[in-house]
Amino acid sequence: MNSIDKLTEIFSKFPGIGPRQAKRFVYYLLSRNPNFTQELTQAINNLKKEIVQCSECMRFYPTAGTGNNMCNICSDDTRDQSMLMVVPRDIDLEAVERSGSYKGYYFVLGGAVPILEKEPEKKIRINNLQETINKRQKDLKEIILAMNANQDGENTAEYLKEKLMPYKLQTSVLGRGLSTGTELEYADPETLKSAFLHRTK
Amino acid sequence: MNSIDKLTEIFSKFPGIGPRQAKRFVYYLLSRNPNFTQELTQAINNLKKEIVQCSECMRFYPTAGTGNNMCNICSDDTRDQSMLMVVPRDIDLEAVERSGSYKGYYFVLGGAVPILEKEPEKKIRINNLQETINKRQKDLKEIILAMNANQDGENTAEYLKEKLMPYKLQTSVLGRGLSTGTELEYADPETLKSAFLHRTK
Amino acid sequence: MNSIDKLTEIFSKFPGIGPRQAKRFVYYLLSRNPNFTQELTQAINNLKKEIVQCSECMRFYPTAGTGNNMCNICSDDTRDQSMLMVVPRDIDLEAVERSGSYKGYYFVLGGAVPILEKEPEKKIRINNLQETINKRQKDLKEIILAMNANQDGENTAEYLKEKLMPYKLQTSVLGRGLSTGTELEYADPETLKSAFLHRTK
Amino acid sequence: MNSIDKLTEIFSKFPGIGPRQAKRFVYYLLSRNPNFTQELTQAINNLKKEIVQCSECMRFYPTAGTGNNMCNICSDDTRDQSMLMVVPRDIDLEAVERSGSYKGYYFVLGGAVPILEKEPEKKIRINNLQETINKRQKDLKEIILAMNANQDGENTAEYLKEKLMPYKLQTSVLGRGLSTGTELEYADPETLKSAFLHRTK
Repeated sequence: MNSIDKLTEIFSKFPGIGPRQAKRFVYYLLSRNPNFTQELTQAINNLKKEIVQCSECMRFYPTAGTGNNMCNICSDDTRDQSMLMVVPRDIDLEAVERSGSYKGYYFVLGGAVPILEKEPEKKIRINNLQETINKRQKDLKEIILAMNANQDGENTAEYLKEKLMPYKLQTSVLGRGLSTGTELEYADPETLKSAFLHRTK
Repeated sequence: MNSIDKLTEIFSKFPGIGPRQAKRFVYYLLSRNPNFTQELTQAINNLKKEIVQCSECMRFYPTAGTGNNMCNICSDDTRDQSMLMVVPRDIDLEAVERSGSYKGYYFVLGGAVPILEKEPEKKIRINNLQETINKRQKDLKEIILAMNANQDGENTAEYLKEKLMPYKLQTSVLGRGLSTGTELEYADPETLKSAFLHRTK
Repeated sequence: MNSIDKLTEIFSKFPGIGPRQAKRFVYYLLSRNPNFTQELTQAINNLKKEIVQCSECMRFYPTAGTGNNMCNICSDDTRDQSMLMVVPRDIDLEAVERSGSYKGYYFVLGGAVPILEKEPEKKIRINNLQETINKRQKDLKEIILAMNANQDGENTAEYLKEKLMPYKLQTSVLGRGLSTGTELEYADPETLKSAFLHRTK
Repeated sequence: MNSIDKLTEIFSKFPGIGPRQAKRFVYYLLSRNPNFTQELTQAINNLKKEIVQCSECMRFYPTAGTGNNMCNICSDDTRDQSMLMVVPRDIDLEAVERSGSYKGYYFVLGGAVPILEKEPEKKIRINNLQETINKRQKDLKEIILAMNANQDGENTAEYLKEKLMPYKLQTSVLGRGLSTGTELEYADPETLKSAFLHRTK
């Protein structure tokens, strides 16, 4: 296989990228000068060198070479110690953090548990979650299961609730209702029901 | 203008229909036998004859020729007299009713008040709403402003809150949060904030 | 069934219209004043009264009450008598006529023959086509089979070629190539092949 | 800027990739094991090492280390020496070659000349094209300007025709007509006109 086909094959594995766009990427790289490709490979190499996984929340974060293995959020003592929000992926953590509404700690589960999945512990970081809860247990009061509002998300929340039962901590799930932009006409019955039950007075 | 162009012009005014699809409708009618067109015009005529506007909630409903001018919901005494839900359109009332979660009464506003609108009373049935509230005032405790989760909806809710202030009734708006299908990654900050604040324990 | 549901059902049969949009049409009619609905039903009635099918090309056209049963194109002697273009539908005839490139006569087939169709003569006006060719045979030299560039279109052209063989007339099909807007990268092999073979010098 | 943001920024420059998908790529790389990233950077490095630009057609091709600087197509003497097809990009050359209809030589222009462009020679490889024509001039009879069927493509063809006039060679452009899948109803007048003029008998 020549280098064009080889690199096309690798880019095809990127999320959301098919063989056609993968090949466009390759020709794009060929069309750029050597500096650009060098910058790219260096950034990829740096990524693996400088980004480590936080031992508490399991998210990827830039280590400052301090020898510390906790991210800036987990090592921030001023945050609300009573809450831990479990999110599916790094990118979800970022979305919640950007919204500015939550001040507790996070845990990145690494995915979701599809319905009928026989080995959930291979899909998500349930063991790491339990360890992190153990560490934080003294002050922890509530675990927020912040899953996507779809079947896999609901199934994951069910699975986690059962697994976390022994801790006797309050668990909660994100509120359902009208998302920004939702029109009543197109809302499903469950969303309308939640929107009515959680109406704001 | 010939009949094809004339009817194309009328169909072009239908919601969501451009001139091209309007013309397809015309040729579709031409291709069907006379029975179909007769059935269509008769259904249109019947619509205007048999469907009347409820004097309470202003929605369109099939009169059973009883002389009564109240729809089946408004004349149902077993519903919750303490709640009135204001919705933009008939189709929204149907969506909420189908969800099975709400058992009070409705009022169909007939639209929304866009921001910077100078004559809101021409856009929505504010006078009829006030009359209906007056009639129901004895038992009424809460008015639910069930608007679409967009700028016009929010603006309409603001406008209504102000107009309804003299009644000293509780007003509420539908709960915001994750709609069915929403993924955290794509949720806007306001939705995430509401979803967190209204989390279910 | 009440008039809302009845009319929704009828509108659902319109091309490209689902039950949801059909219901929007019904509420749209309810929201308009009686003049509008009257104008609509009258336009529908006029359509069936004033629009007749041309006995030559089978297209629908507005009769001027002349008693003549030939449309303005078929009765125009100045057009090119040597060519007859067979198109699937009225709307295709209009598209070609609008392009201004063709000056012969037309025949509207009324549809296409899908592959594996057992009774093609029930899908298209093959008998009428043969009658029209018989009438025009004296001057006619070429029949242009102007079908859509898809499987059904190709199959229809094949079917017609066979049926028209006895007339010993020249048949032709529309040229394949790059449509306006086509980019080479996304063109299929057959289109590229035709584009190359029919290149313009 | 940390490595996540840095790499996100670089991926954002890839064709068709916005900042959000760029970040997904970064997290995808973080989630894969080190072998994958190594394979990726190696493939990128190999690309620049093993893929060279053909001195004749300017396309990128895998050099076999022969010291030769002509691609397999340009160095294939059995192809039709009388034709040179000018295409905008490598990926277009591949599309035509895959269609199997063309057996002459190619030249990859490297882009198109937008209307009102003041320095066309900076957008496309016009000088290289002239050199290649000079080299091939002995047997060359026709230059096929295979541009995209849009404004930029037409403008580029016009520009090239003028530039190539001194060579007194036949120039041609790809045939316009119905692309696979085109329906008459949606075809623009120009496409219909070409389809009629280039009809196949």
